[in-house]
Amino acid sequence: MAGLFISFEGPDGAGKTTVLSAITERFKTAKRTDILVTREPGGNQISEAIRKIILDPQNTQMDVRTEALLYAASRRQLIQETIRPALAANKIVLCDRFVDSSVAYQGAGRKIGEDAVYQMNQFATEGLTPDLTIYVDVPSEVGLARIKAHRQNVDRLDAEALSFHKRVRAAYLRLADRFPERIVTIDATQPVTDVIDQAMTLITDKIKQQ
Amino acid sequence: MAGLFISFEGPDGAGKTTVLSAITERFKTAKRTDILVTREPGGNQISEAIRKIILDPQNTQMDVRTEALLYAASRRQLIQETIRPALAANKIVLCDRFVDSSVAYQGAGRKIGEDAVYQMNQFATEGLTPDLTIYVDVPSEVGLARIKAHRQNVDRLDAEALSFHKRVRAAYLRLADRFPERIVTIDATQPVTDVIDQAMTLITDKIKQQ
Repeated sequence: MAGLFISFEGPDGAGKTTVLSAITERFKTAKRTDILVTREPGGNQISEAIRKIILDPQNTQMDVRTEALLYAASRRQLIQETIRPALAANKIVLCDRFVDSSVAYQGAGRKIGEDAVYQMNQFATEGLTPDLTIYVDVPSEVGLARIKAHRQNVDRLDAEALSFHKRVRAAYLRLADRFPERIVTIDATQPVTDVIDQAMTLITDKIKQQ
Repeated sequence: MAGLFISFEGPDGAGKTTVLSAITERFKTAKRTDILVTREPGGNQISEAIRKIILDPQNTQMDVRTEALLYAASRRQLIQETIRPALAANKIVLCDRFVDSSVAYQGAGRKIGEDAVYQMNQFATEGLTPDLTIYVDVPSEVGLARIKAHRQNVDRLDAEALSFHKRVRAAYLRLADRFPERIVTIDATQPVTDVIDQAMTLITDKIKQQ
């Protein structure tokens, strides 16, 4: 597989999406046309339909494993319709969340088990793994305080207990420990411009290594 | 787990659904109230919504693994909302198709791989396995001829090549060989009344063994 696959991960309130937006802007300013920025569900028809089922507030009976399987199905479709074709065209794919999010949120947060969620996702990815994962780390209390300060509508996940967020972060830290060759942690308690600079340096270094 | 979990399997045209309907009637006539007959998606809101995505003719881009994950998600929800509660209430659950169908149709028919589909489905079932599987077997040529003779609208699967049906049947035969303590094969080239009688005997024997 050609191209470069970079994922962005982090618990809520770490500033992951802000960082990815800033990096996208920098690449635009530099007039790089070989960058594809995506996030699940990624705009394809099937993943959008799956996402609707996951987020439908009427689906109160949804089992946590049903949810994990639906996320994996949506991911699979994004891989086939967007990520693999972009990599085959030698592009740099920047993806907001990938399998690590399912391991952290469904595996640890919802207590399905990290290995079970990881293994099931291998069915969806057929081993497709990011070349680099930028993990934006923040203590759960800091992340939650940021969410409360900045967002008008606190969604379902954000409204859950601090203990949920702590489980998610702990799982991310275990992943970073388990896959040190892939996952680089950035301390997101630093000023956001420093976080962006460090992420940008990691990405440009990775591009140079190609 | 109390109760008794019995699945019905077979390639298209084997007469599986006819047999299950006849057995359901016999139990009704005998006024047994502890029988639950179900089939995926099973009437629950989430599984029905998932099924709609799978069957939507507009979703021409659907990847075979996305489809397999969606079937597993639908199955998981049916297990949690219907099958497990019925078994916990000590009922006899008769289910039209279960994991074996995914192994045969997605694993072999669509060539994902039988073990990969089986393993992924373990995430959905957490090991819930039928106590008895009645496999209604028919040669692919006979099954296809029956479908053409009896159905007005031949659906997508039925319209596919004979080779697809042969792969599905071969996978069923391998499953029957691999799990002889669970799967009992009935030759569906016999008169349908004989097939029904044999299936009924298998079920009543299993109930007596409880």
